Amino acid sequence: MDEREALARLADSLPSAGDDCAVVGDRVLTTDMLHETTDFPAGVDRYTAGWRAVGASLSDVAAMGADAEAAVAAYGAPRFDPEEVDEFVRGAREVCGAVGAEYVGGDLDRHDEFTVATTALGATDDPVRRGGAARGDVVCVTGTVGRSAAALRAFERGDAERGNDLFRFTPRVAAGVALRPYATAMMDSSDGLARSLHQLVAASDTADLGMDVTESAVPVDGAVDDLFDDPDDRREAALFFGEDFELVFTLPSDAVDAARAASPTPFATVGNVTWDGVRMDGDPLPDRGYGHGGGDSEGDTGGDGNGRSE
Amino acid sequence: MDEREALARLADSLPSAGDDCAVVGDRVLTTDMLHETTDFPAGVDRYTAGWRAVGASLSDVAAMGADAEAAVAAYGAPRFDPEEVDEFVRGAREVCGAVGAEYVGGDLDRHDEFTVATTALGATDDPVRRGGAARGDVVCVTGTVGRSAAALRAFERGDAERGNDLFRFTPRVAAGVALRPYATAMMDSSDGLARSLHQLVAASDTADLGMDVTESAVPVDGAVDDLFDDPDDRREAALFFGEDFELVFTLPSDAVDAARAASPTPFATVGNVTWDGVRMDGDPLPDRGYGHGGGDSEGDTGGDGNGRSE
Repeated sequence: MDEREALARLADSLPSAGDDCAVVGDRVLTTDMLHETTDFPAGVDRYTAGWRAVGASLSDVAAMGADAEAAVAAYGAPRFDPEEVDEFVRGAREVCGAVGAEYVGGDLDRHDEFTVATTALGATDDPVRRGGAARGDVVCVTGTVGRSAAALRAFERGDAERGNDLFRFTPRVAAGVALRPYATAMMDSSDGLARSLHQLVAASDTADLGMDVTESAVPVDGAVDDLFDDPDDRREAALFFGEDFELVFTLPSDAVDAARAASPTPFATVGNVTWDGVRMDGDPLPDRGYGHGGGDSEGDTGGDGNGRSE
Repeated sequence: MDEREALARLADSLPSAGDDCAVVGDRVLTTDMLHETTDFPAGVDRYTAGWRAVGASLSDVAAMGADAEAAVAAYGAPRFDPEEVDEFVRGAREVCGAVGAEYVGGDLDRHDEFTVATTALGATDDPVRRGGAARGDVVCVTGTVGRSAAALRAFERGDAERGNDLFRFTPRVAAGVALRPYATAMMDSSDGLARSLHQLVAASDTADLGMDVTESAVPVDGAVDDLFDDPDDRREAALFFGEDFELVFTLPSDAVDAARAASPTPFATVGNVTWDGVRMDGDPLPDRGYGHGGGDSEGDTGGDGNGRSE
């Protein structure tokens, strides 16, 4: 079975699964495992690795509309170079600091491959789930997409400085909290924009839901234009590559102005919630996304892509 | 640097480090990474792996005297066999169920080596720290020690059924909560009894603290006698091998009876808190313990063995 099937199994056997975080009373909890081969290409420094790994879990907290409280990381490596450990911790602390959370420690494990598992804890009495989109809602995306694809291209070209800069991101915690009163459904874009749209539709409490989005409305990062010459590559980077950790969410159309005024991060409106199927400019948008270790989808806590409503 | 030094660096750079869990407001949080080479010897089934990995984090919650609320696990493996994933989740859920916690999901990561990272969340307004032992206190240990060493021997002998039975354990959450009003210092015995005693002394808020323990008072598991013929091997299994997840704690001498009445798990009194140094039957007890990937100490959240009081 691939990761999506395995995650579906996990989700089916768990009462709290199916969102970016598990909900435990008034807290949300999420965990992610990343490793060198697929997540940290050559050129990623340990400061960026710490920032990004912990940031990925904080992004899941953001996607629930929760305040981020704390994060921990388990750090596996063949050896513990003092400078590398310090840099990793510095990145982990700084990304926590950027969203008002505390980095509170971790575990070390001697491991053949550099491997990091991060966990973040958030607080909210009223989490935003994936399942609440309704027909007529507007589909929105914070910030810009394609940044991580551009980072990988920069690493491939040997421009590690730019790659590392692009690989660090501010988890959208403040935006998530600000959007919580308005958003009907929300998740992060770690699997790519296209797959995120499919996931919001699949998770919906409403039958026969769809989304119609407009490609020209998608907020593509400027680095994508810089680093990709081929228009097909640019489209792939923006729509399918993923790992961007923006918020993808739906709003009632009469709440857009208030949400825009409340959110500290700008967001684009890219389409509408409609009937059956996800379409871009009228054509079906494929349900494919971030390929992880062989083309399977990478999942969050409880199971992305399980097609199961909460 | 070895893991102890690396953990000390992590601890020095973190405000909340140095106990079995990090304390975040009225919650405690801990993470552990385990992997096949050093933690899951041949013969360990996935049910036991799920139980044990999640149990290790729940044991850290127990060591703070906290109620266990929830756990998550990130599961890394070269392939996702449906039966293996199901069995892992079953073990994870059952160990949570055994201590009143909820298993709320996880992450999957395609990984060359079977690797598990677990995180547990607990709640307490008044966590028991490692640093509170005082001269005159009694040194105590719940349950029995040596069980995991015996399990490894069973696996070596090809008796996987017995190995798996011994490898599963009930995290001492109920005992930890019951002991919270009485214990002056507490941690779990995952690094072995000898090292745990050294760690409680090193973490102490009191200068020149020591412990004098009596070997015959140490509650050695019956499986140690069964599976080890050589008395030196038995002693090693009981005192140094570790990975047993019992609670090692100190009590004021006038609180022993009340604590015994309160704790659902029996505990042995093995010695007293004294002056400078850890001694067993009058001789210095070496500060060595669970060897992980080359003889280094394995650490918990925030840094075991950092010699730093909270």
